[in-house]
Amino acid sequence: MSIKVGILGYGNLGRGVEKAVSVCDDMSLVGVFTRRDPSTVSIDSGAKAYHVDALENMKDDIDVLIICGGSATDLPEMTPKYAAMYNVIDSFDTHANIPVHFANVDAAAKKAGKIGIISCGWDPGMFSLNRLYAHSVLPGGKDYTFWGKGVSQGHSDAIRRIEGVVDARQYTVPVPEALDAVRSGENPELTTRQKHTRVCYVVAEEGADKARIEKEIVTMPNYFADYDTTVNFISSEEMKRDHSGLPHGGSVIYSGTTDDGKKKHVIEYSLKLDSNPEFTGSVLTAYARAAYRMNQNGDNGAKTVFDIAPALLSPLSGEEIRAHML
Amino acid sequence: MSIKVGILGYGNLGRGVEKAVSVCDDMSLVGVFTRRDPSTVSIDSGAKAYHVDALENMKDDIDVLIICGGSATDLPEMTPKYAAMYNVIDSFDTHANIPVHFANVDAAAKKAGKIGIISCGWDPGMFSLNRLYAHSVLPGGKDYTFWGKGVSQGHSDAIRRIEGVVDARQYTVPVPEALDAVRSGENPELTTRQKHTRVCYVVAEEGADKARIEKEIVTMPNYFADYDTTVNFISSEEMKRDHSGLPHGGSVIYSGTTDDGKKKHVIEYSLKLDSNPEFTGSVLTAYARAAYRMNQNGDNGAKTVFDIAPALLSPLSGEEIRAHML
Repeated sequence: MSIKVGILGYGNLGRGVEKAVSVCDDMSLVGVFTRRDPSTVSIDSGAKAYHVDALENMKDDIDVLIICGGSATDLPEMTPKYAAMYNVIDSFDTHANIPVHFANVDAAAKKAGKIGIISCGWDPGMFSLNRLYAHSVLPGGKDYTFWGKGVSQGHSDAIRRIEGVVDARQYTVPVPEALDAVRSGENPELTTRQKHTRVCYVVAEEGADKARIEKEIVTMPNYFADYDTTVNFISSEEMKRDHSGLPHGGSVIYSGTTDDGKKKHVIEYSLKLDSNPEFTGSVLTAYARAAYRMNQNGDNGAKTVFDIAPALLSPLSGEEIRAHML
Repeated sequence: MSIKVGILGYGNLGRGVEKAVSVCDDMSLVGVFTRRDPSTVSIDSGAKAYHVDALENMKDDIDVLIICGGSATDLPEMTPKYAAMYNVIDSFDTHANIPVHFANVDAAAKKAGKIGIISCGWDPGMFSLNRLYAHSVLPGGKDYTFWGKGVSQGHSDAIRRIEGVVDARQYTVPVPEALDAVRSGENPELTTRQKHTRVCYVVAEEGADKARIEKEIVTMPNYFADYDTTVNFISSEEMKRDHSGLPHGGSVIYSGTTDDGKKKHVIEYSLKLDSNPEFTGSVLTAYARAAYRMNQNGDNGAKTVFDIAPALLSPLSGEEIRAHML
């Protein structure tokens, strides 16, 4: 029997989920749901596009709804709304608002007897798991998270909003010396500036004041002011040729001890991803399988990756995973 | 309320568990159980030593029994036996026999209404988790496991059994070129010899035939014949000074794709451990907490790391882990 999946939202992440579902033999894609006029949306896999309002009447057709919206305004509204009707999963990543989001999804999902997994992907998600496993095994250690080298879409968007900028791509890059110090188990205290640098590629309008644009970037509060930032002006052709992908990755490094601090242990989990949205979509899809199974087992309410037994992610049986992966 | 822990077996691993329990505020060590005369066993932490037979009458005193025996003969007998009385956990690592061991522990634990976690530690254990998570997120990829640089106790023991050998230490060392090829996402086919080398430090009896010892080592079937092996003869003083620790570690590297193979993703989990038994003991201790909690929640039977939600390992609440680690 196939798990019937719906995708809500069809940007980069929705397309990543679509690709991930297509390689899961135990899943089928019911359709993609969009706020746009569905007749204007072409779905890569040929699946049907529906207007989002169709979700009001498809409870029997969808086992899990994967919600691919933005954390700022979409998910706080969408995830609780649809958790009242479907098993749902999202990639909510506004860290400070997770407790409120969790509570809202929990209330809706419990009332409906559904599962709502929030904050899934790689950070939050796989990185969070590695922080938790490491802290649990070696209490009292210290975790470090490095992002990149990879494209930050939020920072790229921030540059695009500057007057005179046609296009921009911002790479977050971990500082090699900081990585080395952490990997050595030294537990250094690192400032924001010491952990990451930011490298920007900018296409400027013809005749734009590049010095002004550069200054506006490097002094931008929250986004760039606390970092060593490099700005490179390039042509549209170079942007398209060299920076059209959305690679990302990073590392969670945990350093702890045993024997009263006499023995050091370093745990590192790292990702090198050619496509951030396709990998994130793959994580969401594996956890969609878990959402469905947990609900079939009678569970309900809001969950995070912390609450989900790893075996629930795999299409294989307990016997098979013990034989091949244990 | 404190989780009352018993340790069965007091070798390197039992001592590692003892140290790990001592840094867990929610656990207390009831005692160490040994097949030796307990009056001859000095427990590092000052905990009480009991003869193993005392376990017949301590069901109300122990919440989880951590079994620190060998996989060859101890655990196949001990774990089912004590799963009939206690929540138990072991580090059984004879891969081919896991199905039988799982079935034996499952039957005993289910009958007693207890939890029996088997094959816990770092491999099997944390490495297994990383294989499962990666295969589940990116179906169709390939996992590689490298061990070392670290001391293999089984291989060290095999050398010690050779005539004329006083002491020996064997390091398993991953081949850097193999690691690089796997990390690049090339998915190479690697032979045993291409993945690891073996480096041996041997103290020989005075007047022993070192050429014969070296030949016996490098041609030993299963242990060394399939590897490039280096043998270094050293003095007892050098052995004690340079090779008294039990460091280990390694990496699970998974390489998978999305978008019909067009996008590559590499996931790596790696450990650098100053003490193999102390880290393994720390993993067992965290999972002992989970065993207790699962049993408190009414669950029973045999489990592996695959069956256990990560949150169950942490002494912190759901709210705390979501706030600090998600």
